[in-house]
Amino acid sequence: MSDILFHESPRFPRGFRCASRLIGLKPKGKDLALFVSDVDAAAAAVFTRNHFPGAPVILGRETLRGGLLRGVIVNSRVSNVATGARGLEDARRMAAAAAAEIGTSADRLLVSSTGVIGVRLPIEKIEQGIRGMSAELQDDPLVGAVGIMTTDTHPKALSASVGDATITWVAKGSGMIEPNMATMLAYIFTDARFDAATLDALLRRVVRDSYNMLSVDSDTSTSDTCAILANGRAGRVDETSFERTLYAGCVRMTEILARDGEGAKHLLRVTVVGAASDEDARRVAKSLVNSPLVKTMVAGADPNVGRLLMAVGKCFECTIRPDATDAWINGHQVVRGGTRLDFDDAMVRAALGIEVVDLEVSLGVGNARARAYGCDLTQGYVDENAAYYSS
Amino acid sequence: MSDILFHESPRFPRGFRCASRLIGLKPKGKDLALFVSDVDAAAAAVFTRNHFPGAPVILGRETLRGGLLRGVIVNSRVSNVATGARGLEDARRMAAAAAAEIGTSADRLLVSSTGVIGVRLPIEKIEQGIRGMSAELQDDPLVGAVGIMTTDTHPKALSASVGDATITWVAKGSGMIEPNMATMLAYIFTDARFDAATLDALLRRVVRDSYNMLSVDSDTSTSDTCAILANGRAGRVDETSFERTLYAGCVRMTEILARDGEGAKHLLRVTVVGAASDEDARRVAKSLVNSPLVKTMVAGADPNVGRLLMAVGKCFECTIRPDATDAWINGHQVVRGGTRLDFDDAMVRAALGIEVVDLEVSLGVGNARARAYGCDLTQGYVDENAAYYSS
Repeated sequence: MSDILFHESPRFPRGFRCASRLIGLKPKGKDLALFVSDVDAAAAAVFTRNHFPGAPVILGRETLRGGLLRGVIVNSRVSNVATGARGLEDARRMAAAAAAEIGTSADRLLVSSTGVIGVRLPIEKIEQGIRGMSAELQDDPLVGAVGIMTTDTHPKALSASVGDATITWVAKGSGMIEPNMATMLAYIFTDARFDAATLDALLRRVVRDSYNMLSVDSDTSTSDTCAILANGRAGRVDETSFERTLYAGCVRMTEILARDGEGAKHLLRVTVVGAASDEDARRVAKSLVNSPLVKTMVAGADPNVGRLLMAVGKCFECTIRPDATDAWINGHQVVRGGTRLDFDDAMVRAALGIEVVDLEVSLGVGNARARAYGCDLTQGYVDENAAYYSS
Repeated sequence: MSDILFHESPRFPRGFRCASRLIGLKPKGKDLALFVSDVDAAAAAVFTRNHFPGAPVILGRETLRGGLLRGVIVNSRVSNVATGARGLEDARRMAAAAAAEIGTSADRLLVSSTGVIGVRLPIEKIEQGIRGMSAELQDDPLVGAVGIMTTDTHPKALSASVGDATITWVAKGSGMIEPNMATMLAYIFTDARFDAATLDALLRRVVRDSYNMLSVDSDTSTSDTCAILANGRAGRVDETSFERTLYAGCVRMTEILARDGEGAKHLLRVTVVGAASDEDARRVAKSLVNSPLVKTMVAGADPNVGRLLMAVGKCFECTIRPDATDAWINGHQVVRGGTRLDFDDAMVRAALGIEVVDLEVSLGVGNARARAYGCDLTQGYVDENAAYYSS
């Protein structure tokens, strides 16, 4: 879709490094990650709209008011949500420990915690675990990406150039994802120079049509965070080019996160065109991408296309004209004027078997469009979530 | 909850009988059912709000304007949805065939079709199949209940007495269920005497807190229909007693449908109290009952109680005060003031293992309450829906 080229191996912009460790929160892998800029970076972030934001989100909103960050400290396994005043105190201690380690003040550290809700953070273990990490900082963003994984099957990092500057995306998924205002944990690092207010506006614009249109399971996490840090080491770059690249990377990372949704075998992209309003287009796209029956249809590569109409039709508040509604599965038209076409079953079945499934719906009542990103619903999702807490 | 006694074996009110047949739409079981009243019955119905109502729903709305029914004819396997003008003509032919069979006019027959969307009704087979059914009419509502099943694991019928009259409920589920204005296929028969306008008001009142609070998977069918027929053979009964019994039976049937949701192992009941408004209470209850993470938690009997808060918190538009929010699982308090309690893990795990799981959330901000009905999300749901069309 986009002509932006991503680097073959993701790399950091000038002045950014990271480290990750296993400190015993998880039985294996890494469970603690530290991202650091050599100098103070202008910063902006968007957070979950959930009414029960985690302590790190509450603290993060406060921290970001300053518009400056030196680093991000993240633990996985325990999310520090629904932990009351003690949880907020633990988040502050985590920021202070990371700040001391890299020689700055606690208000320059963004804290994130991801994992089980309602369990107290093992803060002493984390404080101890942070000690010495500054000596392990490396140039490879994948080192940090590994440290923030929960049920992700692979670490997620991307980078691209904009003029002389670099943008690097690091993120993790992969369940409890229907962002609203923000997303899972997603960090963006750049050495381009922008002030915090410009970054904030840029971030909100690009997030709206990328991370905010991602839904793995319609459940909105209490920890969703998307932050951008710009340390200015590469100087100023053209803002339009920067925004284009920023957007392309956020969309690409959204697709990577959707494809790695819990248990997913397919990336599901739903494009709605011809809607009466932007709001309608977004709502119908989300309805399809979240419908358990559409998602299981994709999982089974079963062209039960009536489910597409069902999922359009249950958007009660939207302007829908059944006789103007058309639909396509990976380019094969399956519905015209609200009626199922007599399509080649085997061909559509084969189209549904492709790893990336594009559903397109034309509502035929206006000019607004939107795209949502998700995945199929498989036994793997049920398996992972029926015992996530215990495992 | 209610003190209404249901008959040990369901039976019909005076003047109602039914028949069912296998006419080759499904490979086995029954796929055609006919319910008949000896005399014209006053009737009312509520239908799906989906923008793509099936042809039988379009026809049913027209038929019900007359306020009189002699019978209901239902086929399973093919839903006659997204079939255009031809589909509507097929539905009319189905009504006419059943009317001819029982000696009345087509406008006295309610037609329902349930099954795959977007496939043309095999109308000749149905017309032929209806012939001779009037000779097979029986007193057992389960005979008709068998004929309307799709993925239901058992036929569903109930009956209870109100004074000298009887009310009988017959329904089918069990996926694509999040009713709004109506529900799956649910028929209610009574020999009490009411006019159509009174029936309509009664039906809308009881459906609001029963069938309309049921959600198996958040997907709203294009065929949802709930109809009531009152043939007056038992004369007048006290309206208040009738409404109480009618409501109790609709709630009981809602629970039976939820428990038999596709792949379900548990009935999930979510009660929200202390909400700022009726709308908020209903929305939060539906959010919990629809959350894939709450549903898989119940499937796995895994007390990952933070998910309850997540599902409350994602109701962005509702009045939620985290420090006033409490939650219970089958009577065990697990959250107080928005914070997870240090509960006995094994005890809550055992409570979640019970077939009926009651989640209660107190929002602490008002006096409104609501209850929603659903089920757990298991591998069985994914299995059934990944290949429903092909099977």
